[in-house]
Amino acid sequence: MRLRELSIIGLGLIGGSAALAARKADAADRINGWDHDPETLAAALSARLLDVAADSVAEASKNAALILIAAPVHAIPALVLESAQFCPAACAITDTGSVKAAIHQALKNAVPNFVGSHPLAGSEKSGHRHASANLFEGRTVVLTRGADCGPAAFEQVSSFWERIGARIVTMDALEHDQILARTSHLPHFVAAALTLVARRDPRNLIGTGFGDTTRIAAGNAALWTDIALTNREPVLAAMSDCEGELRSVRSALERNDRDWIYQWLLQAKQRRDDLGN
Amino acid sequence: MRLRELSIIGLGLIGGSAALAARKADAADRINGWDHDPETLAAALSARLLDVAADSVAEASKNAALILIAAPVHAIPALVLESAQFCPAACAITDTGSVKAAIHQALKNAVPNFVGSHPLAGSEKSGHRHASANLFEGRTVVLTRGADCGPAAFEQVSSFWERIGARIVTMDALEHDQILARTSHLPHFVAAALTLVARRDPRNLIGTGFGDTTRIAAGNAALWTDIALTNREPVLAAMSDCEGELRSVRSALERNDRDWIYQWLLQAKQRRDDLGN
Repeated sequence: MRLRELSIIGLGLIGGSAALAARKADAADRINGWDHDPETLAAALSARLLDVAADSVAEASKNAALILIAAPVHAIPALVLESAQFCPAACAITDTGSVKAAIHQALKNAVPNFVGSHPLAGSEKSGHRHASANLFEGRTVVLTRGADCGPAAFEQVSSFWERIGARIVTMDALEHDQILARTSHLPHFVAAALTLVARRDPRNLIGTGFGDTTRIAAGNAALWTDIALTNREPVLAAMSDCEGELRSVRSALERNDRDWIYQWLLQAKQRRDDLGN
Repeated sequence: MRLRELSIIGLGLIGGSAALAARKADAADRINGWDHDPETLAAALSARLLDVAADSVAEASKNAALILIAAPVHAIPALVLESAQFCPAACAITDTGSVKAAIHQALKNAVPNFVGSHPLAGSEKSGHRHASANLFEGRTVVLTRGADCGPAAFEQVSSFWERIGARIVTMDALEHDQILARTSHLPHFVAAALTLVARRDPRNLIGTGFGDTTRIAAGNAALWTDIALTNREPVLAAMSDCEGELRSVRSALERNDRDWIYQWLLQAKQRRDDLGN
């Protein structure tokens, strides 16, 4: 199912990659776009991510068959409401926010053509200059729906992601947020903590392990601040559990409890081996 | 400077890779070896990592020009003492342990031909089946020396590592341990904690960030237990600092302090960006 017009609101890494992926998959006749930053918008147009650059959200929305809002989490609800006001009745609206419950709560089931999306794809790099047509290839996109969500909108959104190579998982927004607090949001804060705990040393005594473990600490600070604040309770619980694990193993090390430490590391190793890659 | 005989005690990932690298760099006329596990030793011989398999540490030592002890940290001091008893006077002895002060302390400056080595190279995989001739290529090897260390032994050991492609950094054993507690030992325990905090979920909602951050949790549990116990004080201090960082950012999140969280993440990002890769 090819879209007449795909509109992308927000042309950073994710929005830019969605444009490239849609182009590659021939998912739309026309790709329209808008960004709050005029320079980013002009650059996206001249890099041919877009066929048309709109002057406003209203203009980007008015002929769209699908609107993809790839903005920071805190900005998403207002952009959904604004685009819903101007788009055709049959247009579906989705986003790419890493947190979902806060968005559905802010919308209060007032936009039946909205479906929440969270593509589990990204990078510690940001900006459409790092965009890739393959960013979503083989990745999972979680879809969340409000109580009012219409089946046509849901179908439109899931077809789009599948067309650009993603695998769809549907779940409750709060459940999504609780899982992602542990598999995505907490790791980001832990990587930052590790980076700060390693003191500066000109000899740079770091191996591949440290590089891998802290890589995501190079991510966009504003974006991650936003994610933590909008998924506050689950992130607090995950942080507290992580501190608890560290406290337990530290206490085992204080009492020289070889067997406890070994069993704890072994349990972690077995879980990590189960995950693969 | 080509060695007459290189003897490798311990044929896991590191010992096996040293054998392959020495072969590739034509660093020795003959590679001898011993492992406490007869099956591992036989497999290393039949995989042609070794030219000769010795029946004992004594036999592996008696004609060696350089002895490389690639064993778990707790086993190293006894193996150094044993090999020193049987090796020629001009033979240098080194190890590959991730912790250095405990080894020098255990040896009490009794082995002037011993030089401590820590190659900052490894993998979450273990065993000589994963050995690679390029494991040390471009990697840093930290050398540590006791008060009694002879210049000829030091020269022998550093030439060997350079010949197989490594870069040498010399430093005090305790300073090494304090730095590595933060850049290597702590990250391992934190990766394990993160793996345990992420609950099992059949839908496997994990992205590349979680994969990178927790990869080292798949490492050998016995080896890392050993490392933590032999570098106890610096690891305890690093764990405690990491818990402190997490507690501070959790408290900022509890009071919704957007600016504090942003500045903290930004500081981590800037440090991580400075490290590269």
